[in-house]
Amino acid sequence: MSATPAYDDLARRFARLSALEGAAAILDWDSQTKMPPGGAEARARQSAALALVCHERLTDPALGDLLDRAEAEERAALDPWQSANLARMRRQWLHAGALPADLVEARANAVAACETAWRRARPENDFAGLAPLLETVLDRAREVGAAKAEALGATVYDALLDEFEPGGRAATIDALFADLAAFLPDFIARARARQARLPAPAAPAGPFSVPAQRRLAREMMATLGFDFDHGRIDESDHPFCGGTPDDVRITTRYSPASFLPSLFAVLHETGHAMYERGLPARWRDQPVGQAASMSLHESQSLLIEMQACRSRDFFAFAAPRLRAAFGGEGPAWDAENLYRLATRVEPGLIRVDADEATYPAHVLLRYRLEKAMIAGDLAVRDLPGAWSEGMAELLGVTPPDDRDGCLQDVHWAAGLFGYFPTYTLGAMTAAQVFDAARRAEPSIPEGIGRGDFAPLFAWLRAHVHGLGASLDAGGIVARATGRPLDAAVFKAHLEARYLA
Amino acid sequence: MSATPAYDDLARRFARLSALEGAAAILDWDSQTKMPPGGAEARARQSAALALVCHERLTDPALGDLLDRAEAEERAALDPWQSANLARMRRQWLHAGALPADLVEARANAVAACETAWRRARPENDFAGLAPLLETVLDRAREVGAAKAEALGATVYDALLDEFEPGGRAATIDALFADLAAFLPDFIARARARQARLPAPAAPAGPFSVPAQRRLAREMMATLGFDFDHGRIDESDHPFCGGTPDDVRITTRYSPASFLPSLFAVLHETGHAMYERGLPARWRDQPVGQAASMSLHESQSLLIEMQACRSRDFFAFAAPRLRAAFGGEGPAWDAENLYRLATRVEPGLIRVDADEATYPAHVLLRYRLEKAMIAGDLAVRDLPGAWSEGMAELLGVTPPDDRDGCLQDVHWAAGLFGYFPTYTLGAMTAAQVFDAARRAEPSIPEGIGRGDFAPLFAWLRAHVHGLGASLDAGGIVARATGRPLDAAVFKAHLEARYLA
Repeated sequence: MSATPAYDDLARRFARLSALEGAAAILDWDSQTKMPPGGAEARARQSAALALVCHERLTDPALGDLLDRAEAEERAALDPWQSANLARMRRQWLHAGALPADLVEARANAVAACETAWRRARPENDFAGLAPLLETVLDRAREVGAAKAEALGATVYDALLDEFEPGGRAATIDALFADLAAFLPDFIARARARQARLPAPAAPAGPFSVPAQRRLAREMMATLGFDFDHGRIDESDHPFCGGTPDDVRITTRYSPASFLPSLFAVLHETGHAMYERGLPARWRDQPVGQAASMSLHESQSLLIEMQACRSRDFFAFAAPRLRAAFGGEGPAWDAENLYRLATRVEPGLIRVDADEATYPAHVLLRYRLEKAMIAGDLAVRDLPGAWSEGMAELLGVTPPDDRDGCLQDVHWAAGLFGYFPTYTLGAMTAAQVFDAARRAEPSIPEGIGRGDFAPLFAWLRAHVHGLGASLDAGGIVARATGRPLDAAVFKAHLEARYLA
Repeated sequence: MSATPAYDDLARRFARLSALEGAAAILDWDSQTKMPPGGAEARARQSAALALVCHERLTDPALGDLLDRAEAEERAALDPWQSANLARMRRQWLHAGALPADLVEARANAVAACETAWRRARPENDFAGLAPLLETVLDRAREVGAAKAEALGATVYDALLDEFEPGGRAATIDALFADLAAFLPDFIARARARQARLPAPAAPAGPFSVPAQRRLAREMMATLGFDFDHGRIDESDHPFCGGTPDDVRITTRYSPASFLPSLFAVLHETGHAMYERGLPARWRDQPVGQAASMSLHESQSLLIEMQACRSRDFFAFAAPRLRAAFGGEGPAWDAENLYRLATRVEPGLIRVDADEATYPAHVLLRYRLEKAMIAGDLAVRDLPGAWSEGMAELLGVTPPDDRDGCLQDVHWAAGLFGYFPTYTLGAMTAAQVFDAARRAEPSIPEGIGRGDFAPLFAWLRAHVHGLGASLDAGGIVARATGRPLDAAVFKAHLEARYLA
């Protein structure tokens, strides 16, 4: 990387920014895994101070001048990766610079208050108590969206979406999701009817020792190729993947009552981790070396969890190992039985407990509602009613209270408007990419059946991970699969798995 | 804290700096406890970026103007704590501002290279391989000392010492250490002669299960009053106390072969932790709310480890608990036997393994040698010879190689010149402060005998911890004990414990 004075200066500045963001990522991991409760206040100050430093660096007037100069005078001297890097720098600058410092602070304060209140309000089923704080968060989000909309030349919702999904637009998502919305209710009904005609799978008898689950988690991570020299696994209330590409940290949670949810959480987070590890090392500390988008990130976790591992191929490999891990006996431990347990379809109230087939319906609902809230067409006070209606329409179930209804997710309380659609974009992308991988490398499914993920990850590194953010997510999917993202392969996958 | 415009502005700036320093402290803890080895390079960049941000903030020209204004125009309006805070701010500004950015970077690079080389050179006994890198570190340290000497109006060595021991001066230490140097050799000989006349204590039979040691560590921390809502214990290669006052993190290491070393490491680090926790909460994010010096910090760990816990009082409480923790049987688990095991005197080669009586001799040697190196009177290539001579003179032992000689400590490779004397200043301070505490509160030893440390910590909070850095260490010791630090009480303590 030696290009031109302005570009080189930018690269140095963004490398320092990347180091500070990495520091913030480790602190965030610590907050969720190791920090004693009494450390929370000090940690909030530390994280806020780091965020402020990063924002100051991104809004330094000198940065805007350097971007102008590099774009105007040096563009011809840059190679394609450097050009893509420069575009990513400009995007970060636009996002940061669109917001006056007092709005950044007002949003952070509103979110801090609302998240804290949510932790109390959800168990107490107190939507009325949360509503005023959530209204404030929504107001700040709309202000942020409006400010960014002007800078990005996008709608307010698209400007918020763009934080998580660079280049993503609601018009595209609307079309993709309409396709799914037309498909899902009938598909779910057919899948359940078919399921009802078969004898129910047997549940292996527990309890399942937590130390044995911990060993199993590490064994499966090693099988997937997770490099424990560059990462670790811990426990937290909600599984996540954090840290940095060279020090990637996943978590899960264990219950002695069952082992499949924790195991699939580990497989899911390992998918995220392998994407981080596979990002182009040469561009490690630059914007172009980072993940292309949240939907592409989610696609890599779902590709492992749902496409590769919730499969007969995987259970052929895993069943004897699961049986050995827990000293299990009897037909409940047979591969086919475990596969059928892992692919049950059951509409429910809670998104994070949902199966592969019903999960998108939860996301469709949230996407509709958050777009309406940002547009000013849905008031916070009307959220519970709209939630119930949507659940009845999309999933045929109605929450008995807000705790298991519109209070169940922290996202909106945390100010994350524009995030939800990336889950289902990720699921669709996972199906389309896995399908392309299998066509290109027919040895992939057979490898999975032997616990050999090397052919799969070799293909993913070459066609997805290694591209970093040199293209946006749509461009990477089109290049890797030969066509733009659509719902067809995802629908075909669901039909093949649940109706065939 | 509402004083005056310049002071208030300073307080806000230093609060942000404190948050960034807290972030750096947690990252450093992570590096030593949780980080996978492959994360080291990224972590080095994160820590360097944070250090650079802190240095930039401290050398912001606006800060100098604010300090000038607060000192000139507002001093009369400040209360004593605010005045002390302002003086501490000025001190930090002097230390940071004395160093040009390229010297800061050159020192960091020299230290990074030398520390890495030391990790290889020590096990390989390769002093010759390390020497050129150590010479570079020494050169940079001398440049740093020279730059700070001018800013502080101090000698080069004192300027380095001042980083760890604000206001500390070699002339004072020389006198204190000369007193000890005259005392120690004869004292050690007498203590060993007395010890030889008694039957040797019996060692409890191991192995000692590591899970049982972990439980014991937490039990003893709880006995001392450690608040697990505001801290934790983990494992690392070398025990340390890190984190921040509201999230204080200690470590130890366990060996199944013995439990006393780990237990006393836990007691030592808990002493550090209790000092951090006892610092004045009202001044948490300001310089005056921080530890007064490294010697005072070490005094609080040694007061717990050596004064309070390596005592008959403590073993009367602890012996039955130790026996229960390991299911021990027989007279080796009697309080008097364990006490005698914990107070064996045995000159040896390794500082970190040294007992209370011989430890100061290790420090006297290092203090002499580092002063000579900084003064230019001792070349790095002559270090092994000077080391052997000094060990023979002070302790009557000679290292067979450099591995167990001048390569044993990382300090100089890490650029820590001026740090070693704080260990023995801390030991002397611990004796003098504990003596004053017992005189003021005769219930303290009896409390320790029952596992009740509340009277001791109540006194320490009132007379040491709660003072923060409102005085320098010398001022705190004089105020708490009624006279300046000298060697008399430490010597009397050693005589009472080892000769009586």
